[in-house]
Amino acid sequence: MINIAVAQSGGPTCAINSSLAGVFSEAFKSDEIGIVYGFKNGVEGIIHDNIVNLNERLSEPQNIELLKLTPSTALGSCRVKLPDMEDSTEPYEIIINTFNKYNIKAFFYIGGNDSMDTVAKLSKYLSSIQSDIKVMGIPKTIDNDLVGTDHTPGFGSAAKYIATTVQEIIRDSQVYSLNSVTIIEIMGRDAGWLTASASVLRANGETAPHLSYLPEIPFSPEQFLKDIKAAQKEHKAVIIAVSEGIRLSDGNYVASGHLSGSVDVFGHQYLSGLGKYLENYVKQELKCKVRSVELNVMQRCSSHLASLTDINEAHDIGVAAVKEMLKGTTGKMMCYVRENGRDYSIKMETVNISEVANKEKFFPKEWVNEKENNIKDEAINYFLPLIQGEVSPAMNKGMPVHFKF
Amino acid sequence: MINIAVAQSGGPTCAINSSLAGVFSEAFKSDEIGIVYGFKNGVEGIIHDNIVNLNERLSEPQNIELLKLTPSTALGSCRVKLPDMEDSTEPYEIIINTFNKYNIKAFFYIGGNDSMDTVAKLSKYLSSIQSDIKVMGIPKTIDNDLVGTDHTPGFGSAAKYIATTVQEIIRDSQVYSLNSVTIIEIMGRDAGWLTASASVLRANGETAPHLSYLPEIPFSPEQFLKDIKAAQKEHKAVIIAVSEGIRLSDGNYVASGHLSGSVDVFGHQYLSGLGKYLENYVKQELKCKVRSVELNVMQRCSSHLASLTDINEAHDIGVAAVKEMLKGTTGKMMCYVRENGRDYSIKMETVNISEVANKEKFFPKEWVNEKENNIKDEAINYFLPLIQGEVSPAMNKGMPVHFKF
Repeated sequence: MINIAVAQSGGPTCAINSSLAGVFSEAFKSDEIGIVYGFKNGVEGIIHDNIVNLNERLSEPQNIELLKLTPSTALGSCRVKLPDMEDSTEPYEIIINTFNKYNIKAFFYIGGNDSMDTVAKLSKYLSSIQSDIKVMGIPKTIDNDLVGTDHTPGFGSAAKYIATTVQEIIRDSQVYSLNSVTIIEIMGRDAGWLTASASVLRANGETAPHLSYLPEIPFSPEQFLKDIKAAQKEHKAVIIAVSEGIRLSDGNYVASGHLSGSVDVFGHQYLSGLGKYLENYVKQELKCKVRSVELNVMQRCSSHLASLTDINEAHDIGVAAVKEMLKGTTGKMMCYVRENGRDYSIKMETVNISEVANKEKFFPKEWVNEKENNIKDEAINYFLPLIQGEVSPAMNKGMPVHFKF
Repeated sequence: MINIAVAQSGGPTCAINSSLAGVFSEAFKSDEIGIVYGFKNGVEGIIHDNIVNLNERLSEPQNIELLKLTPSTALGSCRVKLPDMEDSTEPYEIIINTFNKYNIKAFFYIGGNDSMDTVAKLSKYLSSIQSDIKVMGIPKTIDNDLVGTDHTPGFGSAAKYIATTVQEIIRDSQVYSLNSVTIIEIMGRDAGWLTASASVLRANGETAPHLSYLPEIPFSPEQFLKDIKAAQKEHKAVIIAVSEGIRLSDGNYVASGHLSGSVDVFGHQYLSGLGKYLENYVKQELKCKVRSVELNVMQRCSSHLASLTDINEAHDIGVAAVKEMLKGTTGKMMCYVRENGRDYSIKMETVNISEVANKEKFFPKEWVNEKENNIKDEAINYFLPLIQGEVSPAMNKGMPVHFKF
């Protein structure tokens, strides 16, 4: 009988707690597993021995249901980057000590690109000391930019939020008889998946977004104005979806003068204010009514509007990770493989962490139109299955109930 | 047998189409009323004879249901201000000509403060020429700042959006172990009702928002920093709700250097960017992690998250307006009167337009705490009934279906 541990890392999503629920539920019913521990704030919690006994906190089925629809990381998150073991083994030794203290023989880390870097390094260290402790990565990121998986848990809910909200913003923008431009700033530092996902609205009879700009395509302010003028000939209210991470042809961020100046520990610049920047630019140049809307953290935490498909898949990938570990698998990330066939279905498989960590999957250029200012219909078939199904959060006095440790 | 007309004006809400549905449904089943017309873009549509036969477009019950949950103004809106009839009767004559052309004997205008100004002026003109055409105002505004009514249609849905979304932002802000400040910018140019409504989260076990700043209370940047420092002693992640319209003690908007510069026809300055302004201010002064989130148009158009109470009341006030008109009433605005008693209930009554137009109802100072930086519990009992009940929009391929004329 072994104990296992799970932790969460990276930016919040609507589905990361559902994966936590999946890991717990499968482990809790296994005869081979005793206690399921959770570490608070990712590897920070392992290093500082900040531990929760999940058997005590999650054994009530109603708590599992609440957890599945609670946004963000219930166990907390971190942005810790482990050193290369060649430079320092100290944090690894501390981690192994903590694992040994609680008889933890398997560790599940739910996170994005940076978290998979942690899984890869930890796996390499464990292998180097011939430890029998297993480590598994469970993907999550709203950005959908992890390689080795058809899509990432959390992406479908963010895409459903974006489709629903952009459609509501379209209605809002069409009320007046005058010409207007609405610029919707969507997350995505390097990959345009989320911005592109707004185009699923075409499957619901909308023509907007009329223009979409992704980080994968160099952005030209002059062409941007020309695109808007062309769109204004057809649409009174022009709706534009734009990724926060669009860059000029010299590689600089478009609103680099408006960057917050903060850089996270992975060296990523913290972007803020692109929408407002473009709003002022278009206002000055085209002298028309312009509004910018930043979907901000709502696109990653609006669990009241999560995709049921995403929440269920995120749960099941947690379940599958535990099953894989019990089969003896270690040093892998779980992934979704989309199966061929008329109807959408996925199977859960594993991929080598080294093939995933520190890599990014970009939005395919072949799904961008010739003018490089919008998304082709082909992309819609990829997106649509991921946003299907609605959730029904438990409510208290008109407000959703969240699970809290 | 008379015909009637209805139009919508002012800023969008989630409930203004439900009032349109109420007016249509009641009129459609009345033996005394023939055709129900809609004018596009408010009084602009009357002046330019831009008319829709609603009997042809809305007689299917399923369209009524879609309309009730479609955000924004399905008939379009305007921000036209009629001149005083002493200065010019020309637009009034055009309006009466249009009404006569279609045998329209009653006009229902769904809107906010500015729209009630139009109703008041039109009513005065109709009276001066001893016309038998009746005119009725139906309130709507997310701002809840209309006098003469307990609350306004549209407010409850905006408040439910704010409570739900702020709660999700709270979860999102609590993931990291470091200290942080999250500033949530909420609509409200002069009245703090929406910002204050976030405090209903206390009834759901949340301590946040830890600080709330309303336009009714002069804002001191120095005291703001002191308030944050005090809050940081108790909370790792400090959550602040702030109205877009907060002003310094000299009456200037806090972020007046950051105003978009636009002024609408009613002379209101178009505010934008207060949250970002405060974010940078706190970052510079307190050197901690700060994020700002502007709820932007989502707080007025997120009909997927509307309050069922609000949608139903908004429908019923449209019904009541038609009934009142058929009793002979004219020149009045419909209003909600909250009845005494343990359980929440309202009745629909009328109030003289002159008592409503161009006036504003502010958030009561007695519901603001002594430190003038948060909301007292007493306000929660006022807010809570308005956010009860969830809607179930018709869905197509994972996206809500909107009604479009």
